[in-house]
Amino acid sequence: MGGMARLDALADRLSRIVGAGSVLTDPAELATYDCDGLTYHRATPGIVVLPDTAEQIAAIVRACAADGVPYVARGSGTGLSGGALPRTDGVLIVTSRMRRVLEVDAANQRAVVEPGVINLDVTRAARPYGYYFAPDPSSQQVCSIGGNVAENSGGAHCLKYGFTVNHVLACEVVTPDGEIVELTEGPGYDLLGAFVGSEGTLGITTKVTVRLTRLPETVQTLLAGFDTIERAGEAVSAIIAAGVVPAAIEMMDALSIEAAEAAVRCGYPPGAGAVLIVELDGPASEVDSQFARVKELCAEAFEIRVAADDTERGLIWRGRKSAFAAVGRISPDYIVQDGVIPRTTLPEVLARIDALSREHGVRVANVFHAGDGNLHPLVLFDGAEPGAGERAEEVSGKILDLCIEHGGSITGEHGVGIDKAKHMPRMFTAEDLDTMQMVRCAFDPAGLCNPGKVYPTPRLCGEVPGRRTGVHPLVESGKADLF
Amino acid sequence: MGGMARLDALADRLSRIVGAGSVLTDPAELATYDCDGLTYHRATPGIVVLPDTAEQIAAIVRACAADGVPYVARGSGTGLSGGALPRTDGVLIVTSRMRRVLEVDAANQRAVVEPGVINLDVTRAARPYGYYFAPDPSSQQVCSIGGNVAENSGGAHCLKYGFTVNHVLACEVVTPDGEIVELTEGPGYDLLGAFVGSEGTLGITTKVTVRLTRLPETVQTLLAGFDTIERAGEAVSAIIAAGVVPAAIEMMDALSIEAAEAAVRCGYPPGAGAVLIVELDGPASEVDSQFARVKELCAEAFEIRVAADDTERGLIWRGRKSAFAAVGRISPDYIVQDGVIPRTTLPEVLARIDALSREHGVRVANVFHAGDGNLHPLVLFDGAEPGAGERAEEVSGKILDLCIEHGGSITGEHGVGIDKAKHMPRMFTAEDLDTMQMVRCAFDPAGLCNPGKVYPTPRLCGEVPGRRTGVHPLVESGKADLF
Repeated sequence: MGGMARLDALADRLSRIVGAGSVLTDPAELATYDCDGLTYHRATPGIVVLPDTAEQIAAIVRACAADGVPYVARGSGTGLSGGALPRTDGVLIVTSRMRRVLEVDAANQRAVVEPGVINLDVTRAARPYGYYFAPDPSSQQVCSIGGNVAENSGGAHCLKYGFTVNHVLACEVVTPDGEIVELTEGPGYDLLGAFVGSEGTLGITTKVTVRLTRLPETVQTLLAGFDTIERAGEAVSAIIAAGVVPAAIEMMDALSIEAAEAAVRCGYPPGAGAVLIVELDGPASEVDSQFARVKELCAEAFEIRVAADDTERGLIWRGRKSAFAAVGRISPDYIVQDGVIPRTTLPEVLARIDALSREHGVRVANVFHAGDGNLHPLVLFDGAEPGAGERAEEVSGKILDLCIEHGGSITGEHGVGIDKAKHMPRMFTAEDLDTMQMVRCAFDPAGLCNPGKVYPTPRLCGEVPGRRTGVHPLVESGKADLF
Repeated sequence: MGGMARLDALADRLSRIVGAGSVLTDPAELATYDCDGLTYHRATPGIVVLPDTAEQIAAIVRACAADGVPYVARGSGTGLSGGALPRTDGVLIVTSRMRRVLEVDAANQRAVVEPGVINLDVTRAARPYGYYFAPDPSSQQVCSIGGNVAENSGGAHCLKYGFTVNHVLACEVVTPDGEIVELTEGPGYDLLGAFVGSEGTLGITTKVTVRLTRLPETVQTLLAGFDTIERAGEAVSAIIAAGVVPAAIEMMDALSIEAAEAAVRCGYPPGAGAVLIVELDGPASEVDSQFARVKELCAEAFEIRVAADDTERGLIWRGRKSAFAAVGRISPDYIVQDGVIPRTTLPEVLARIDALSREHGVRVANVFHAGDGNLHPLVLFDGAEPGAGERAEEVSGKILDLCIEHGGSITGEHGVGIDKAKHMPRMFTAEDLDTMQMVRCAFDPAGLCNPGKVYPTPRLCGEVPGRRTGVHPLVESGKADLF
C-alpha cells in the first residue's frame, strides 16, 4: 500500500476513534499546521487529529503503531526549536481541545489541568485562592501546558522559581505503545523528571498536576539605564554577589531597545547602551530592604525608574516581552538564538559576540535573562539580500560555539527540536548520546514518536541496547538469570 | 566453575585493577560490611573492593559483567532502606576512599566532589566563601554524597530548599556496561534527574557537581510546646496558610520527646503533648518580621522558646536529630517508618495512627517533617517477646497503607531499597512499574547493578521491551526503518 493510500485508510480509522469532525485531511486545513513558532522549518502534516480524551490519544497512538506511521503531538504550537514540526508522512495530534482545568486544590498547592490549557489560564484559575503558576514563558498568553512540559519551558522569573520541571508534580502520559501511565515524583525512578523536557519523544502528556505558588505579598520592579552593556553586566554580578535573589534580572542592549521602542513605545531611557529590569517579590519587609540594596548596586546607572504600580510595571515588561517580535520593526528577518553561559563569563562572551557581529557585518540584538546566563541573541538579516541568510546562520552558529567554549549549553529554554539536533555532538560524547538514546528506544523501539527531533543521528533501536557491543553479552550467553 | 571459585578468580582480577591492598576477602573483614543503616537486613558480601578512581570503578564493573557477577556500590552505608545491602554472591564497591573536594567555584555557586565525600564536608569547604550545601539528612556528619545522590536524600530543611536532586548539577557515572558518561541538566533527556534517586540501580556516581547555597544572613529558631499533637498540627497549617515558608518545621510527639530527653537531655518543655521546631532563615528584614508572625500563629502553645544563639539552636536541634537513635533508650527494638501524606490530611492520619497503636498494643513515637507531610513513625517493640516483632511489622505496614489511602507515598526520603520493594505495587500499576523497568533494562540488561532492590519482581530484561507484547511488532516486521 502506498504512503497516501495508507494515510487515507488511517484517517478512516482515526475518524472512528474521535469522530469525523475531529480529523482534518483537507490540504488547505492541513497547511495551517505546517510549522510551530520556528517558521523557518515547514512541513504539512499528512493528517491532523483533534482528540478530546487520553483514551482517544491512546487509541490514535495504537493505530499509528499498527500502521508504522509516525506522529507528532502539539498544543498551541508556539515552540521556538521546531519541536512540533509535523511529518508529511505522519499524524499531527493537536491537544488544543483538551483545555479543562480539572481541579484547583489550594490547600495542597496544586492544580490538575489538561494539556491544551493555556499557561496563563492556570494562574487565572488559581488567583482567587491566592496562588499562581510560576513558569512564565514570554508566550504565556497563548502557549499551552502540554508544550511547556515537553520543552521544560522557562521564563523571565525562572531565576528564582525554576523551570517547568520544578512545578510539575505528576503527568498522565500515553506511551508509544499506547498505554496510559502515571509518572510521579516519589519512589522508583524519577521518570517524570526525564519526561519533562523530552520534547515529545517519549510519549504524549494527557493530564498534568502542577504546583501552585503563593502570590507574593509585594512586587517591586525597576528599570535602570546604563551607558554601556559592560556596566549593566557589572551591576548584575554585584546584585548576585550580594546574595540577593531577584525574581528576575533581564538585560537588553541598544539595538533591542531600539526595536522595542519602535514596536510598543515602552519609553525606555533614551540613549541607553543597555537597560536592566530587576524585579523582587516576596514578603514586603524583605522586598523593601533588598530593593534599596539593589538600587545602591545600580549606582552606575544614569537613570533608575521604579514602577509605582501594576500599570507602570506592565509597561516596563511590555518592552521586554515583545522584544523578539519587535525586532521585525528594524529588520525584515532574524534568527532567535538561545544559549547559556556561566554568569561569570557574561562580559567576555558579550564582547566576543560584538566582535563576531562587526567581523561578519551582521547586526546582533541581545536580549537575555542575565541572572542565569541565558542569552537570546537576535541575529538580524534581510532574506532578500543574497547570502545574508547564510551569514546570519553562520554568526548564530558561532554564538553557540562561544557558549560551549565557555562551559555553557546550546539551549537554555527553547529546546533542541529539529533546529539544534545537529549541535548535540558538540556538547555530548557519543557515549553520552548513546545513553540518552537507550532510554528513547526503551520507550519507543519503533521510533514513531516525534522522530527526527533532538538527536542528530536517529538509528534503529536494535543497534542501541548494549551499544557498541550489540546485545549485552550476558543476555546472549543466558547468564542474565543470575539476578 | 562454582560460585566460590568464580569469586576467587574475580578477586585476583580486581587486585590487578586496584592493588591487592584494596580488595578484601577475609571473612572477618567482609562481615563488617554486612548491612547499611537498616541493620534488620544482613548479607556478607562475597568481595569488598575499595577503588580510588572512576577508571578503576569502570574496570571493576567490566570485570563483574564479564563474569556475570552482581555488584552493589556504597559510600558510608548510612541508608535506612537497605539500598546498599550487599550480595553474598557479589562484589561490594565501597567509595569511601574517593573523598576529595576537587573544586569550589564560589562565583558560579558550585563545587565538584568525589562520591565518598561526607555531606557536611562540602559545607565545610564552601563556608569560607559564604556558601553551604543545603541538603541536610540527620546523618550529615557521616553520610556521603554518593549515597545522597543514590537515595535523593532530604533532610529537615528540604521544605524550603528541596532534595538532593535540586542541588546536583552534574554527575559523572560508570554505567553497567563499564563506560564513563557525564549526566547533566540541559539539552536532551534529564537523565540526571532519573539517575538521582535511582538507588544504585542505573550505575555508580564517580564525581558530583553540586549547587552551593548562599549562607543566610540570619537564622531564627523557636521551640514551641503544645498540650496536644492536634494543636501543634493546627499551628503548622496556620503557618503554611499564612504564606510563610520556613526553612524547617519539625514535630515530635510525647513519646519521642521522652526518648530524646532520656538520650540527650535536650530540655524540651516538660509535659508537652507535642513540640514544634520552626526555623526561618534568609535576609534579616524578612526573617524578623516573619518570625514575629510565626510566634503569633503558635499562640496555642503553652511555652515558646527562642534560640538566643547558635548554642541554644544546636540544643534544640540535638533533640530532634538524635530522635531515631534515642528511641533505643525507651525500647529495645524499633522500626523507623518513612511515609508521606498531603499536609492537609495530617490531623486525620495522626488520629488513625494513634488508633492503630492502641488497637494492636504497640507503641508508636512520631517524629516528622511536618511542613512537607513526611512522617517518621517509630514503631517500638521488644524482640525478646514472642510475636512482638511481627505485630510491630504489621502496624508499620498499616501506617504505609494509611499514607497510600490518603494520597501519599511509601517513602519520603529513605528510599525503597530492599525493604519496601514489596510495597511498590500498592502505589503503582503494573504498567507504571513496567515503564520504570524498561529504563532499568536499557541501562542494565544483564541485571547485575544492585539487583533485587526497588522493584518487587525483577524479571529478565528480554521480557520487558515492548512489554506485554514482547518485541515491538514494528521492529519484528522490519517497519522500524520508517524514521
